[in-house]
Amino acid sequence: MSSEKRPKAIDLSHHVSDFARRYALSPLKGLQKYYGKDTIGLAGGLPSPDYFPFTSVSANILPVDAFPLTVPRASSPASASSSAFGWLWRIFGGGAGRRDDTTTRIEVPREPRPDDGGVNLAAALQYGPATGLPRLQKFMHEFTERVYAPGYDNWTTLVHTGNTDAWGRISKLLLNPGDTLLVEEWTYPSAMASARPIDARWHGVPMDNQGMRADALREILAGWDVEKSGPRPRVIYTVPVGQNPCGTTMGLERKKAIYDICVEYDLIIAEDDPYFFIQIGEFVPKSQRKAERESPAGEEVSRFIDSLVPSFLRVDTQGRVIRMDTFSKTIAPGVRLGWFTCNPLFVERLERIGETSAQNPCGLGQALVVALLTQWTFDGYIRWLRGLRTQYQHRRDFLVDCLAEEFELSPEPSITTSGGPALLCAYPRGSGSGGLLGKKARPLLSFVPPSSGMFVWVKLHFGDVPDKRDESDGSVLTPDRQFWEKLAKAGVLVGPGWIFAPALGAPPTEADRQTGYVRVSYTPSDMETTRQGIKIFAQTLREFCRV
Amino acid sequence: MSSEKRPKAIDLSHHVSDFARRYALSPLKGLQKYYGKDTIGLAGGLPSPDYFPFTSVSANILPVDAFPLTVPRASSPASASSSAFGWLWRIFGGGAGRRDDTTTRIEVPREPRPDDGGVNLAAALQYGPATGLPRLQKFMHEFTERVYAPGYDNWTTLVHTGNTDAWGRISKLLLNPGDTLLVEEWTYPSAMASARPIDARWHGVPMDNQGMRADALREILAGWDVEKSGPRPRVIYTVPVGQNPCGTTMGLERKKAIYDICVEYDLIIAEDDPYFFIQIGEFVPKSQRKAERESPAGEEVSRFIDSLVPSFLRVDTQGRVIRMDTFSKTIAPGVRLGWFTCNPLFVERLERIGETSAQNPCGLGQALVVALLTQWTFDGYIRWLRGLRTQYQHRRDFLVDCLAEEFELSPEPSITTSGGPALLCAYPRGSGSGGLLGKKARPLLSFVPPSSGMFVWVKLHFGDVPDKRDESDGSVLTPDRQFWEKLAKAGVLVGPGWIFAPALGAPPTEADRQTGYVRVSYTPSDMETTRQGIKIFAQTLREFCRV
Repeated sequence: MSSEKRPKAIDLSHHVSDFARRYALSPLKGLQKYYGKDTIGLAGGLPSPDYFPFTSVSANILPVDAFPLTVPRASSPASASSSAFGWLWRIFGGGAGRRDDTTTRIEVPREPRPDDGGVNLAAALQYGPATGLPRLQKFMHEFTERVYAPGYDNWTTLVHTGNTDAWGRISKLLLNPGDTLLVEEWTYPSAMASARPIDARWHGVPMDNQGMRADALREILAGWDVEKSGPRPRVIYTVPVGQNPCGTTMGLERKKAIYDICVEYDLIIAEDDPYFFIQIGEFVPKSQRKAERESPAGEEVSRFIDSLVPSFLRVDTQGRVIRMDTFSKTIAPGVRLGWFTCNPLFVERLERIGETSAQNPCGLGQALVVALLTQWTFDGYIRWLRGLRTQYQHRRDFLVDCLAEEFELSPEPSITTSGGPALLCAYPRGSGSGGLLGKKARPLLSFVPPSSGMFVWVKLHFGDVPDKRDESDGSVLTPDRQFWEKLAKAGVLVGPGWIFAPALGAPPTEADRQTGYVRVSYTPSDMETTRQGIKIFAQTLREFCRV
Repeated sequence: MSSEKRPKAIDLSHHVSDFARRYALSPLKGLQKYYGKDTIGLAGGLPSPDYFPFTSVSANILPVDAFPLTVPRASSPASASSSAFGWLWRIFGGGAGRRDDTTTRIEVPREPRPDDGGVNLAAALQYGPATGLPRLQKFMHEFTERVYAPGYDNWTTLVHTGNTDAWGRISKLLLNPGDTLLVEEWTYPSAMASARPIDARWHGVPMDNQGMRADALREILAGWDVEKSGPRPRVIYTVPVGQNPCGTTMGLERKKAIYDICVEYDLIIAEDDPYFFIQIGEFVPKSQRKAERESPAGEEVSRFIDSLVPSFLRVDTQGRVIRMDTFSKTIAPGVRLGWFTCNPLFVERLERIGETSAQNPCGLGQALVVALLTQWTFDGYIRWLRGLRTQYQHRRDFLVDCLAEEFELSPEPSITTSGGPALLCAYPRGSGSGGLLGKKARPLLSFVPPSSGMFVWVKLHFGDVPDKRDESDGSVLTPDRQFWEKLAKAGVLVGPGWIFAPALGAPPTEADRQTGYVRVSYTPSDMETTRQGIKIFAQTLREFCRV
């Protein structure tokens, strides 16, 4: 891709909000051109590095191959939950001696050295520019080129403190009061949280098994009534991979179709992609599962990158995609570090917005992450990501296997649209073959096993459970709220579906009323606990639906 | 203070901006009440701590008494610049063996332990609430009570990622478009940078040697013309200690007077106080300088706290002060950590605003700072701050001594208003006694040596230097701009006065035109370099003024 001649970004300055437009370049920036190697600086309020109490910071880190690329066959939910946990700990070197054997020590030294890219405490503990440590900048740029290969030439990157910060800044960059933001039919609450104070609205675009539907998007834009609904939307917020909460993943063709509509109607795409590297493949029932074949030596890196659904950046020839990357799911959320990739005009404004909010990310976090990546190398980091993918694949399989132990799971390919993975319907055990024509034709729940991310989006079919009154405030409790609370009282928390609804407060139809959604995550708890949670979940649901 | 009965904060909800008002409580927060010790969590998108590649993080830290409480007499600028530097390095344990002898190792372990207050990698590397690690919360609260002793009862604290983030959030909390923010006559550019995108204006309040003048504030408010200037100001942004750029410090009486006006006119005070612990006492000429007497044993902590001009919080009986504390000047800027102290209503909104911007501060930074403070203890941290104070006092003295070597410095107490420290006027060496009545009565520069902070605000008296045209764009270059550029080309950067002017772009009067300001900082460069810089500064100024 990099050898091809790529077009330049087009002028999209009309998308900058009034708020973002008013930012001025800091007058201090004007001074930077005067700084030379031998300049005597008496201008700034920087404390002397001699006064920083940390004289060195170091960490022990796992090796890049801490996690295997194949999952042992033994890890069935019934027998192996505890042994699976033990297996994990063996792999991690969880034993007292083992961990020290396999970890490496990285250090951020006090004094700068030539070509250290700012990875020293004198720089990392000092005020820094909102653009981050030089070596981190270099990493972000090279990683983006090699992994995402944007479709235009003059894209650029900018560090941020995680995708929440990133989307907060993007919403300020693009949205004016009264604007409508397009989101997926079910979406991450944070998307709405950032739009609300700006007095922007949001509108859900219907989804299928690949996430946002291109035809539905076009219909909304073509039929937009400016009189009734205000300015036509200019911004899409999307989680294209492992969508939150639905777990869907957009294929390349879908991305192209949506991008083309954005070109036609002049929209900007905010691509929030924390789960990009958790592309774990389609779910395969346990009996048919095979270990992934190893890549031929020397081809591991390119084969892995090629195996991933490309980013929206790949189809972006005009600079209308703002991609958000984060280390939260690949290193750790607590480092609060990630980066934007977009056109230079937007990056310049995002930097200004950052200068009066998060400012530069914590230097200790930056330095330790960069030291880790330097120690690992690019190829090593890819190996680490492959190991993580296997872990999450295993956890996804494990959760679905747990559900298969509690219910009779039956695929219903006829319900699936647009060629995605099949819907699985779950019937009470012993209710016969299930299926749509059987006597007990109503499934208790249904879901599509996700091929990316961390979540199973489970539709619950309650049947004919009546509404209840809340004892404390007299409000109506629909069945989904009754069930969620019953489950919580039984000691299991799942994500309540209604918090992901863009149309919060819309009265449910009768059909809606007898269904509900929960987002079940296979990542936060260890396997034994997850299995226990699914057991309680299943039992509570059976009781609730009186089957 | 804590034993007295203090009043509750009054209702100040009408000060919340429309922007801040629209934030909603995240629906996810509603789930927290269901979390018990044995709850099985399948709700969140938290990665398993097993997948964090850091298995331990540690640091070497200086001892609390790394810096002495008295400065050796030998450190005169002429002889001791290099030896002073050597002395600093001796103190720091800069020698190869020495540093390890005196530093202590702190570690953030991987596994949680009971009562560790979140100082473990499982918590620090995970998503965290915007309120920070529990032990950090505890520290901030106790520190605020002991050091600032707020004048009302239900004040509360909230972590932020440095005072830039803090003021960014406060401006969003309080300012509506069209509002006018009151600032000091010369102010920190960041204050204006955050107000600008909101479409708020700013208005400078005249200052004297104690900073913002209470009488001038009252005059502005009493005479405010709503028709002409929009809504009467509701917010003051102030740097009361070691003001940036002027270096002035407000005494308690001044703070009381300003606070009373804020009660009368219903204003909120945003107290940006990064230099609070750099209260270094009035400047004493070298010949009269004596080493500070040691505090009696057992009284060091309370004597130190009592020696500091109290915060605005001390006089706040209604909850109308939002104080910003930061670790940037006391630990290191790169940790990006600080905290708000204010009424619970404002803190709740500031937390919401933080949730969609900086989110929780970097966990590695939080954990390392808390581990450091835990190791040091409260009393130890106070000892560290006392050592820092001595360092900055020494640096301030050194800079003024350097100026005294280049110029004939003469105090002009008659020019000083309101009983603050005396103005020093600098005359060319050999021009006689200087003084207002002498032949060469015009000083080249004048300044008040600051009793706090990091800056000397130097007024330059150019005499009759003509304007010039900029060769590149034909714009008029007033003498202050000509001099600043000439100095930069000579290799010395000082803070150009005009970037601190709230009334940017106002045409200067003829008297203004022949003066200018520069902010000279004694903190970023080592002493030898500082001395060299002042030499070049003095020579450049003499040449520029042809004396």
